Amino acid sequence: MRALVFDSRLSFQPRQSEPLHSLGDSLIRVRQAGICSTDLEITRGYMGYKGILGHEFVGDVVDSADRQLIGKRVVGEINVVCGRCDLCLSGLSTHCRNRSVLGILNHDGAFADYVRLPSANLHVLPDTVDDDQAVFVEPLAAAYQVVKQIKLDSNKWVTVLGDGRLGLLVAQALRETGAPVRVIGKHPDKLALCEKWSIRSRPLADIVPRHDQDVVVDCTGSAGGFELAMQMVRPRGTIVLKSTVAQGKPLNLAPLVIDEVNVVGSRCGPFREAIRALGEKRIDVASLIHRRMKLDQGVAAMELAGRPGVLKVLLSMD
Amino acid sequence: MRALVFDSRLSFQPRQSEPLHSLGDSLIRVRQAGICSTDLEITRGYMGYKGILGHEFVGDVVDSADRQLIGKRVVGEINVVCGRCDLCLSGLSTHCRNRSVLGILNHDGAFADYVRLPSANLHVLPDTVDDDQAVFVEPLAAAYQVVKQIKLDSNKWVTVLGDGRLGLLVAQALRETGAPVRVIGKHPDKLALCEKWSIRSRPLADIVPRHDQDVVVDCTGSAGGFELAMQMVRPRGTIVLKSTVAQGKPLNLAPLVIDEVNVVGSRCGPFREAIRALGEKRIDVASLIHRRMKLDQGVAAMELAGRPGVLKVLLSMD
Repeated sequence: MRALVFDSRLSFQPRQSEPLHSLGDSLIRVRQAGICSTDLEITRGYMGYKGILGHEFVGDVVDSADRQLIGKRVVGEINVVCGRCDLCLSGLSTHCRNRSVLGILNHDGAFADYVRLPSANLHVLPDTVDDDQAVFVEPLAAAYQVVKQIKLDSNKWVTVLGDGRLGLLVAQALRETGAPVRVIGKHPDKLALCEKWSIRSRPLADIVPRHDQDVVVDCTGSAGGFELAMQMVRPRGTIVLKSTVAQGKPLNLAPLVIDEVNVVGSRCGPFREAIRALGEKRIDVASLIHRRMKLDQGVAAMELAGRPGVLKVLLSMD
Repeated sequence: MRALVFDSRLSFQPRQSEPLHSLGDSLIRVRQAGICSTDLEITRGYMGYKGILGHEFVGDVVDSADRQLIGKRVVGEINVVCGRCDLCLSGLSTHCRNRSVLGILNHDGAFADYVRLPSANLHVLPDTVDDDQAVFVEPLAAAYQVVKQIKLDSNKWVTVLGDGRLGLLVAQALRETGAPVRVIGKHPDKLALCEKWSIRSRPLADIVPRHDQDVVVDCTGSAGGFELAMQMVRPRGTIVLKSTVAQGKPLNLAPLVIDEVNVVGSRCGPFREAIRALGEKRIDVASLIHRRMKLDQGVAAMELAGRPGVLKVLLSMD
């Protein structure tokens, strides 16, 4: 099969499709996949991952011990877990100590003709969710995770830092709580999207941090976002950290202590809620698609996705 | 009066005692004061503060519009607040937007013969708390703040990182919750103190971080403590940040996201609870006194307090 592989450098290459190792696995023929900032960070050294990239996908099950799955159109949760460690047994299986993670940690990803995942990770899609929406299930679930972790209501002032792929999903998800959400970004065309969704937005250049936001969600994908978040959040307020970057940065955390700030790290989220929201057309993802490219254009597609201001680049396997 | 002043450099010098500016203020003749790591960090540039240092003290009120206070032995809360800003009005007066802070921010401190504070900041001491205990009220209150901010019980595994002045107070305060508390430190004599208090302890050199602690309280006073805390805390666990340092450090916060860690900044705490605990002899502070020196030896006392392994150095004004 064909695959986009990172191994010190990024290349498009033929790969042997692995057979199903375990009775619990399914083999999925990938329809299309989305390029995420995490994929880009991996090519900068994040996680030290080597292998097939990609963890946002939709496809059809072509082989599985669970015969009912065969032929079904699915998306898949990315954490492959043991089910036996202390964290799995305490209900924190996304943090499984023995986990592999699709396209991120010890598990070949979905920028390929076929991908393998445990059948238990798969969610069969309803007809109300089309293939374009489906590739957004994983990042949208990550956006809904913020709603699960912190209590929001109409009295909470919320700022989403970053108008990128993830920031625009997070803003839409948080807006559903009734909280007044504001997006801070650099790109007029993306801030115009916010206006279309009736979400307030402000250009980064206009911001004077006033330590007055109840909640600041850092979706900048840059090490500098956290410093700005510390300047914007009110004393005893909450910073939600959504983005991971390969590079560190000199940081002084004293403002967290002085202002008694709460920082919440946030990663993967609930697929069911994301699928439901997409099926009910509550979240606009069509506007986030920047370009469609073929799998064999993967190297160029990754380069494009890494340019400032570019939203979702989709890779099609047909 | 005599005072220990930081103004680019540390010096012992005569200073005019300020008159009472406001009807709400009291003038206190200082009996003795304690040197805190924050004082040392200020001499390294923290907060950009210039003026008389010192915020841990006990003394006698010698002038006040509140006649009942005169002659009383008191300790004082360090945040001098406006009572009118949004934060004061919402019950967060320790975070007052217009605050000054004794010996830390725009308010002369207590390493002097006299100190001025709003009468509302003062707590009259019971006879059950002696002068040595009294200088620990402020840092012990900061230790109890952790108990107010996070829920602890006998099922939570708690590690206190750092066996310094603050760490040993935090460990004693947290132990009262029934949680199994363990102190990680570098100094055998301090870890022996933990043993005396029946608090478990381990030398730093023996630690293999296992991402298994429910709560890690960083009292190291060093920028490196936070990185170790990120390696020790379990997924979805809590890091409490207690110490502020002047210098930043290159940090990658990705582990907070990956492990969905909660970070809680923690600063000043409840004086009443600290005074009660000291009066009831629940907290041993006598063992934390390293040396007593005179105010006019202040420069040497600060130098001593900055040496590794040195606990509380007290400055006496008599």
